[in-house]
Amino acid sequence: MLVVMKPHATQEQIDAVVEKIRGMGLQAHPIPGAQRVAIGITGNKGGLDPGNFETMPGVADAIRVSQPFKLVSREVKEEDTVIDVGGVKLGGKEIAVMAGPCSVETREQILEAAHAVKAAGAKLLRGGAFKPRTSPYEFQGLAEEGLKLLALAREQTGLKVVTEAMDVENLAMVADYADVVQIGARNMQNFSLLRQLGAIKKPVLLKRGPSATIKEWLMAAEYVVSSGNYQVALCERGIRTFETMTRNTLDLNADGIIVEVHPRPDRALSDGHQSLTPSEFDGLMKQVRVIAGAVGRSL
Amino acid sequence: MLVVMKPHATQEQIDAVVEKIRGMGLQAHPIPGAQRVAIGITGNKGGLDPGNFETMPGVADAIRVSQPFKLVSREVKEEDTVIDVGGVKLGGKEIAVMAGPCSVETREQILEAAHAVKAAGAKLLRGGAFKPRTSPYEFQGLAEEGLKLLALAREQTGLKVVTEAMDVENLAMVADYADVVQIGARNMQNFSLLRQLGAIKKPVLLKRGPSATIKEWLMAAEYVVSSGNYQVALCERGIRTFETMTRNTLDLNADGIIVEVHPRPDRALSDGHQSLTPSEFDGLMKQVRVIAGAVGRSL
Amino acid sequence: MLVVMKPHATQEQIDAVVEKIRGMGLQAHPIPGAQRVAIGITGNKGGLDPGNFETMPGVADAIRVSQPFKLVSREVKEEDTVIDVGGVKLGGKEIAVMAGPCSVETREQILEAAHAVKAAGAKLLRGGAFKPRTSPYEFQGLAEEGLKLLALAREQTGLKVVTEAMDVENLAMVADYADVVQIGARNMQNFSLLRQLGAIKKPVLLKRGPSATIKEWLMAAEYVVSSGNYQVALCERGIRTFETMTRNTLDLNADGIIVEVHPRPDRALSDGHQSLTPSEFDGLMKQVRVIAGAVGRSL
Amino acid sequence: MLVVMKPHATQEQIDAVVEKIRGMGLQAHPIPGAQRVAIGITGNKGGLDPGNFETMPGVADAIRVSQPFKLVSREVKEEDTVIDVGGVKLGGKEIAVMAGPCSVETREQILEAAHAVKAAGAKLLRGGAFKPRTSPYEFQGLAEEGLKLLALAREQTGLKVVTEAMDVENLAMVADYADVVQIGARNMQNFSLLRQLGAIKKPVLLKRGPSATIKEWLMAAEYVVSSGNYQVALCERGIRTFETMTRNTLDLNADGIIVEVHPRPDRALSDGHQSLTPSEFDGLMKQVRVIAGAVGRSL
Repeated sequence: MLVVMKPHATQEQIDAVVEKIRGMGLQAHPIPGAQRVAIGITGNKGGLDPGNFETMPGVADAIRVSQPFKLVSREVKEEDTVIDVGGVKLGGKEIAVMAGPCSVETREQILEAAHAVKAAGAKLLRGGAFKPRTSPYEFQGLAEEGLKLLALAREQTGLKVVTEAMDVENLAMVADYADVVQIGARNMQNFSLLRQLGAIKKPVLLKRGPSATIKEWLMAAEYVVSSGNYQVALCERGIRTFETMTRNTLDLNADGIIVEVHPRPDRALSDGHQSLTPSEFDGLMKQVRVIAGAVGRSL
Repeated sequence: MLVVMKPHATQEQIDAVVEKIRGMGLQAHPIPGAQRVAIGITGNKGGLDPGNFETMPGVADAIRVSQPFKLVSREVKEEDTVIDVGGVKLGGKEIAVMAGPCSVETREQILEAAHAVKAAGAKLLRGGAFKPRTSPYEFQGLAEEGLKLLALAREQTGLKVVTEAMDVENLAMVADYADVVQIGARNMQNFSLLRQLGAIKKPVLLKRGPSATIKEWLMAAEYVVSSGNYQVALCERGIRTFETMTRNTLDLNADGIIVEVHPRPDRALSDGHQSLTPSEFDGLMKQVRVIAGAVGRSL
Repeated sequence: MLVVMKPHATQEQIDAVVEKIRGMGLQAHPIPGAQRVAIGITGNKGGLDPGNFETMPGVADAIRVSQPFKLVSREVKEEDTVIDVGGVKLGGKEIAVMAGPCSVETREQILEAAHAVKAAGAKLLRGGAFKPRTSPYEFQGLAEEGLKLLALAREQTGLKVVTEAMDVENLAMVADYADVVQIGARNMQNFSLLRQLGAIKKPVLLKRGPSATIKEWLMAAEYVVSSGNYQVALCERGIRTFETMTRNTLDLNADGIIVEVHPRPDRALSDGHQSLTPSEFDGLMKQVRVIAGAVGRSL
Repeated sequence: MLVVMKPHATQEQIDAVVEKIRGMGLQAHPIPGAQRVAIGITGNKGGLDPGNFETMPGVADAIRVSQPFKLVSREVKEEDTVIDVGGVKLGGKEIAVMAGPCSVETREQILEAAHAVKAAGAKLLRGGAFKPRTSPYEFQGLAEEGLKLLALAREQTGLKVVTEAMDVENLAMVADYADVVQIGARNMQNFSLLRQLGAIKKPVLLKRGPSATIKEWLMAAEYVVSSGNYQVALCERGIRTFETMTRNTLDLNADGIIVEVHPRPDRALSDGHQSLTPSEFDGLMKQVRVIAGAVGRSL
């Protein structure tokens, strides 16, 4: 059930609806929109009677949500979500570009990469301090040391920092350093982790699991949103198919891109084979700028 | 084995190599290139000794082909293949656009569609006269009547015609009317049909099977080329994955696009739900024109 | 629409229903069952009114078929289909075992294989005379010479022969020699071929395409049945997935099995790596016999 | 690198090898076998020289491990792994049967299920107290209360308990109550959790991720084994494919089975549609008993 408030509903009217919902033993999720506030209701077993809310002052409508993903559905919030990362917008007219190496490796590497992607026009710096690796014997990241280097790069360049949290243990620390907390593909259905994301005040970049359906992905976002964090950006990264000539098969339209850039890919401690050099990245940005314009966006 | 002739090898020298190959009980496939002629050898069980050919006059090199797809490999023909369809190029700098309805339905429908896609800048008209349908109870196409309507549309607009041949029985008839003969995804491994394509003098547009690997697709092209028809264009159309929200999952870069356009998609006898209207197609073409420019191509 | 006749309906009553259907410009498909005759109707665009048939003499019921596959649905024929191959049953209590080499290669090879699988308890001999191969350079089968050798093996052993038809050109010849005509996985949606199977009087073994959904497979069977051949057995052979350690992924329950057996797999011209030796096959049959008993079947 | 000790090597000789490995800054993993001890070495960047160990007293051989999964490879431990769960064997001649409801729901439900599966011949009871659910609004399990009910069922029936740990927070508690700790499919690559499994002294049942390759699954087991817990059983549960008529596609041979049994599936709080009733489970066990015998195993 979703209670849609009138455009000029007062805070008292909103509070009254929230109060009533809680009085019924249910959860209320007020979701501010550009035009109006909507209040999602969860926790009910069967359907609710819209009549409970329709006649309350300030209420425009009370509608049933037909999707299993409720708070993240278009029924609940029709307009596009735009996330503000300290002035850089995710989901707006501007194409957001996040670039940087797979892993933070050394001070020189991350600073060189940051300056290069900044020069090419990116506004967000990506780089992993905690790395989920298929093998226990591979490089697992610099941990807090890596986070500090990312913060240093931010200080020098003004780029916003996107970096991954792998578990509940380190989540608070990652959120302290990051501007956007990334949840990796393998953790997309780590529900214990997802539920803790409501406690942090930073936007979340939720990568799609390699074999997750779009519905499962939206349900994972629902875990985050229902825990209280409404700032979730979805990051498509391709799915696993029978084809082995390409590592993943990717099919989409997007509001932004995330690209691995490394000063010297041949010496990278992880994913070097799929990283661009700074100059390749610069060429890519030139093309993206023209293409964005062709489809009514900008960079 | 591939025998690469010198740039200025004479016809006599080429003939002598072909003669020698045939004398060994093998097949010779002379493949003209922009710079030189190469002669593919097939039919040998084990490896051949390059020494058999290296010392013959006009021969530059004799090299082993390491791929299971031989004649379609880059080892045999390093440069890009450009197919000339009566002046319209497939595979060159220009992005080839093939557009039109899924099926030819009526005289009015195909002529209206042809004029519309021509106006928007397409140079090839697509439309099926023979339709492979999942159900035996669905519209199966107008057969020869549909081919005649395509020929009429070509006459009025100058567009080249791309249309599908479904079986050996109707192949010669389709090839008479078509400028490019399409082989559909479900027939990609209909080897009896592929082998007959050597006998027609028209370029072939070979669609990828929905679960074919890229290697199997190249092997299907190898069937066509080894039967004597060197003009094969590959048409990616997405593969089947676990995801059901999208019908196919598509991952690629291309030299052209093929798009379904129908004057009134809501009344189409097949695939109306995925057809663009002429005006949507016109908008698409405007974007493609800019994007093509951004990547150093044109329309 | 399906018209179900009463158990003791007369031939005249059946003919009258068929006549009425044809008079409406539609196709009638009388399907004999153990208890009663049912008449499938195809060719109608919209729904038909059951009232057209319900009051006719001998008619028990007229029901709408809700599946896209009509004649092969359980709605049309509730009981299991049992196909009689000269006394050997497919689909009955007995597990049908079809065994033999991938390809017929030589007189000695096929006779040795036939005697071996007969001795182990198989009742049907499989072996290909026409082989659809991924590469045009691989062994393509002995063609009619192979069919003659299969007939000879049948003569010597009494085994029924299962062999593949690859195209319309050779279908009649294959059907002359075979007891069961196999349609291979790659031809599952070769609709031109499927439509010709109504003209042959032999049962059809329809293999599942490697990426066909079960619904598409049933629709392919519908092509055969709607063309007039009601004897269609479905052969599951695994589907293509992301996993490459197994060639196909197989998931099923069955009325029979089809197994490749070759006297000397290491010398086989095709698929030797997946063929059992006669003695391995003998061991398999011993296990299958006990397992069949455990699930209330026999061998 | 794997150092294989002689059958009668002394503890001192083993300790000396371990000491030498640690002295080189690497990790030593002594793996006891039925015939001999082997010592796996991890942590080396490049290859090691076997000469370092071959001449030490008690050493039979020092061999390079060619697989990315090292400690779980057959190279390191050739014989089958048999895990002893308080007298019940996983991986031996006997087929291990784990049965019980998806979730522990009530005292009556779990006790009734336990007595029923015990009567049918199962030796391990499964049931979830922590449930990873696709939706945040679905039943998430009884948590510690569920674990206590499982312990009570064990006390009454003597069945061993298999139950899932979802996160590091609750791992120690789950391990206290469980005889076997299950890691669910969605957590197969939750590396932070896998690394903590070395600290518990209970066997681990590691389910395959729905889109994990077999290699990735073995690498996940490697995480557990390299953290110090050698008792890992792999649980296949089918993979995700394009086919939607079956929820998962399953392809395997096994040493045991895990089956959902619920006293009243229609009232189950989770997965009722795929649970057997006690009487259906009893019928299944009768068949499994015969089939196990047919393949040289027992129940």
